[in-house]
Amino acid sequence: MESWIKSLKTDTPQEGFELAIKLAQKGVEYTQPSVPVRKKLRPKYSKNADSLIAASQVISIHFQTVAAANNYWKSNFE
Amino acid sequence: MESWIKSLKTDTPQEGFELAIKLAQKGVEYTQPSVPVRKKLRPKYSKNADSLIAASQVISIHFQTVAAANNYWKSNFE
Amino acid sequence: MESWIKSLKTDTPQEGFELAIKLAQKGVEYTQPSVPVRKKLRPKYSKNADSLIAASQVISIHFQTVAAANNYWKSNFE
Amino acid sequence: MESWIKSLKTDTPQEGFELAIKLAQKGVEYTQPSVPVRKKLRPKYSKNADSLIAASQVISIHFQTVAAANNYWKSNFE
Amino acid sequence: MESWIKSLKTDTPQEGFELAIKLAQKGVEYTQPSVPVRKKLRPKYSKNADSLIAASQVISIHFQTVAAANNYWKSNFE
Amino acid sequence: MESWIKSLKTDTPQEGFELAIKLAQKGVEYTQPSVPVRKKLRPKYSKNADSLIAASQVISIHFQTVAAANNYWKSNFE
Repeated sequence: MESWIKSLKTDTPQEGFELAIKLAQKGVEYTQPSVPVRKKLRPKYSKNADSLIAASQVISIHFQTVAAANNYWKSNFE
Repeated sequence: MESWIKSLKTDTPQEGFELAIKLAQKGVEYTQPSVPVRKKLRPKYSKNADSLIAASQVISIHFQTVAAANNYWKSNFE
Repeated sequence: MESWIKSLKTDTPQEGFELAIKLAQKGVEYTQPSVPVRKKLRPKYSKNADSLIAASQVISIHFQTVAAANNYWKSNFE
Repeated sequence: MESWIKSLKTDTPQEGFELAIKLAQKGVEYTQPSVPVRKKLRPKYSKNADSLIAASQVISIHFQTVAAANNYWKSNFE
Repeated sequence: MESWIKSLKTDTPQEGFELAIKLAQKGVEYTQPSVPVRKKLRPKYSKNADSLIAASQVISIHFQTVAAANNYWKSNFE
Repeated sequence: MESWIKSLKTDTPQEGFELAIKLAQKGVEYTQPSVPVRKKLRPKYSKNADSLIAASQVISIHFQTVAAANNYWKSNFE
């Protein structure tokens, strides 16, 4: 797999959330490397409430990791 | 995606809980950006006990992150 | 939503567990604000083993947060 | 609910594990207080592989909390 | 239940992983103490992809606990 | 089981993510040691959206552990 992540550091929580989404997607990508297969599956999960909730949960676990890595962006706390 | 979060800081646990809900919803929104599709799915999960429990679980993971970020609002502990 | 939580502080693990239950329920309440709908769903999950296990899991995640917030009530450790 | 837990302190990991099981069961009990209903459900989950795995997962989350509360029983580490 | 665990200490991550598997299995064992019933269930989950993934998840949560207990075996980090 | 992991240390988040995948796979492997059975199951989960999301979740929990073990690779934070 080519290099797709340098560090867990992000400047803002939003960037951290978007990194968490990338990590969640990479978990699927490594497990199913075929782009056509993944594309074929998109309608299945993206129009299913429980699948969307499950996807949001994976993002929440990665976001917890990225947030801890960035000390919760406390420097953004006025 | 336009800017939707500045920081994880909230003044109270209730605000932290409501931020956790927003984070859980954003996980769904990034995965399924179409508002009409998400609206169509609402009756599916909002009237299904297991879906509601699953949604509450995603909120609980994000709340754990937000609570840690705010040092559990210990300043509110008399 | 009216104010329903002041702080994560509780005097005992049991109070902490009961706060975790309240947090788990609030996750459902914010997602499905209708009391009649939630009442109608009660028999569905409260008489289903897997739903009860899933509910217990949401409580376990919130309890982990509340326990950390209260430093595991170590002052109760003789 | 009568008093059922004084503290998260246990002398050994095994006692901690058994406390985690109690916490997982209490999550179900608070959600479904009826003993006859819970008894009726026992065959459903206790003879279903996925339900048993799900129950083990709730125990694992509570065990993580109890272990942290007891500093992983490091005093038992020779 | 006879004594089955003395401490969470292991010398290596692999031993820690194998302890996590034991903890996950004990969660099932305490919930369904009957060996014949558990044996009868083995083909159900051991030949089902989703059950195997769910079992791996319980192991991952216990491994997270055991790894923290052993300070991530940092003494093994050259 | 032959030795398959020396330490949780990795130089980069990507290596850490790939170790997390290995840990998730080992959880399945220990539970179902038969290679032919696991091969037969691959089409089942690798072409199922919910199974892929569930696999990504196990990876996310292991990644959280590996990231903490490596202090979030903060040395990579310029």
